[in-house]
Amino acid sequence: MDTLKNSKDYIFGIHPVLEAIKAGRDMNKILLRKGVKSEVFTSLQKLIRQNNIPFQYVPIEKLNRITRANHQGVIAFLSLIEYKNIEEIIQRTYEEGREPFILVLDQITDVRNFGAIVRTAECAGIDAIVIPQKGSVSISADAVKTSAGALSRLAICRTSNLIATAQYLRNSGLKLVAATEHTNNFYYTANLLGPIALIMGSEQTGISKPLLKEADDLVVIPLQGEIESLNVSVAAGILCFEVVRQRVLTA
Amino acid sequence: MDTLKNSKDYIFGIHPVLEAIKAGRDMNKILLRKGVKSEVFTSLQKLIRQNNIPFQYVPIEKLNRITRANHQGVIAFLSLIEYKNIEEIIQRTYEEGREPFILVLDQITDVRNFGAIVRTAECAGIDAIVIPQKGSVSISADAVKTSAGALSRLAICRTSNLIATAQYLRNSGLKLVAATEHTNNFYYTANLLGPIALIMGSEQTGISKPLLKEADDLVVIPLQGEIESLNVSVAAGILCFEVVRQRVLTA
Repeated sequence: MDTLKNSKDYIFGIHPVLEAIKAGRDMNKILLRKGVKSEVFTSLQKLIRQNNIPFQYVPIEKLNRITRANHQGVIAFLSLIEYKNIEEIIQRTYEEGREPFILVLDQITDVRNFGAIVRTAECAGIDAIVIPQKGSVSISADAVKTSAGALSRLAICRTSNLIATAQYLRNSGLKLVAATEHTNNFYYTANLLGPIALIMGSEQTGISKPLLKEADDLVVIPLQGEIESLNVSVAAGILCFEVVRQRVLTA
Repeated sequence: MDTLKNSKDYIFGIHPVLEAIKAGRDMNKILLRKGVKSEVFTSLQKLIRQNNIPFQYVPIEKLNRITRANHQGVIAFLSLIEYKNIEEIIQRTYEEGREPFILVLDQITDVRNFGAIVRTAECAGIDAIVIPQKGSVSISADAVKTSAGALSRLAICRTSNLIATAQYLRNSGLKLVAATEHTNNFYYTANLLGPIALIMGSEQTGISKPLLKEADDLVVIPLQGEIESLNVSVAAGILCFEVVRQRVLTA
């Protein structure tokens, strides 16, 4: 298990901060722009007081010096995510009588795509996202914002050996299903029921060959147009919710 | 089909803008200096209204920030794409023996989301995207970039009356299916076969009530987590490819 990240990082924007507080994240301090009056801002202030989070009213210039992005008058300083242990998550999921649903992301380096995938994964009820320690995204404030708060709720597991982790998942009873264009097997005819790990790669390079070799099943989203690929976060949404569909319809 | 235009983003000056309108150039928006009174300015305003071009009165400083040239109180932002006629597209689709598949976007103003949706729509084989003239996205270079080239392939139709266009689509035999959280009807149990227009709204405001009333069917994507909504481009991907799935499996 990794240790807590350094505490100088921050998130911004009213809704991301609201979500993070609701998720119970520890915050060192929240900076609020002086004199802002709006309903959503008032409910944010109320939530901050209820949770006894230290806060301070500051001029907008101070917020602007911290970030030039659209902070909407609120910046929250917190530790970025605490990585979770995949073994513990798999074990707990089985103990709770549920079938693990894991998303493995190989070489996804775009922060916005990563944030969007985390948001989607949370909405699909995924138990954890696995990323490699090297060649993956760095989880920045931008990723947190794009995830709409999901990064505070969803377990992210980092591994120094993605192949070994994939093998561990298979040995734990999960079917490894890789999204790739190198197959004619449409995702909606594939059996995605049972404990499952969906593996997705970047739009540019796809899944690395050694990892692809570990897959039990390959699936493709059949494209109807001339554009060569979907955005990876859209593709992740389609596949994750196909798993949800199959699970719900057979429940 | 290449609908992308090679031109600069805007033109300025009373006569150039007058001429461009008369020549039928598609425009995203026209900015007019507040408080100008002259005969030729009045006839320009009249022509703008007659052509249903979105416009806005602004202080001269705003115009000066856009160009230092002699704009004479008027700057017109040209559309980067050539808008298509929805009636012609519906007619042609039927003539080709295909069932129309239309995506209607209500109040989607985020350029990146719009671009991502266009890319997804092209991949799903959609025939056209319909957007309202007011309160919609300006099709900028950023949108073109995010669409991964799909904006030069996929027909975009702009309408001054989204309700009337929805009614036209229904009268043309299309089922109007609206994505909304105000239903318990899961999208994957809904019948999405046949000529169809999917209607999607923004993440913030959803679909406007009058448009929602026009829908033949409401569908929801059942979320499994605690985040309140999916990103609209991800939701569009899930719904568009559910239509593809149902079509392919019954073909």
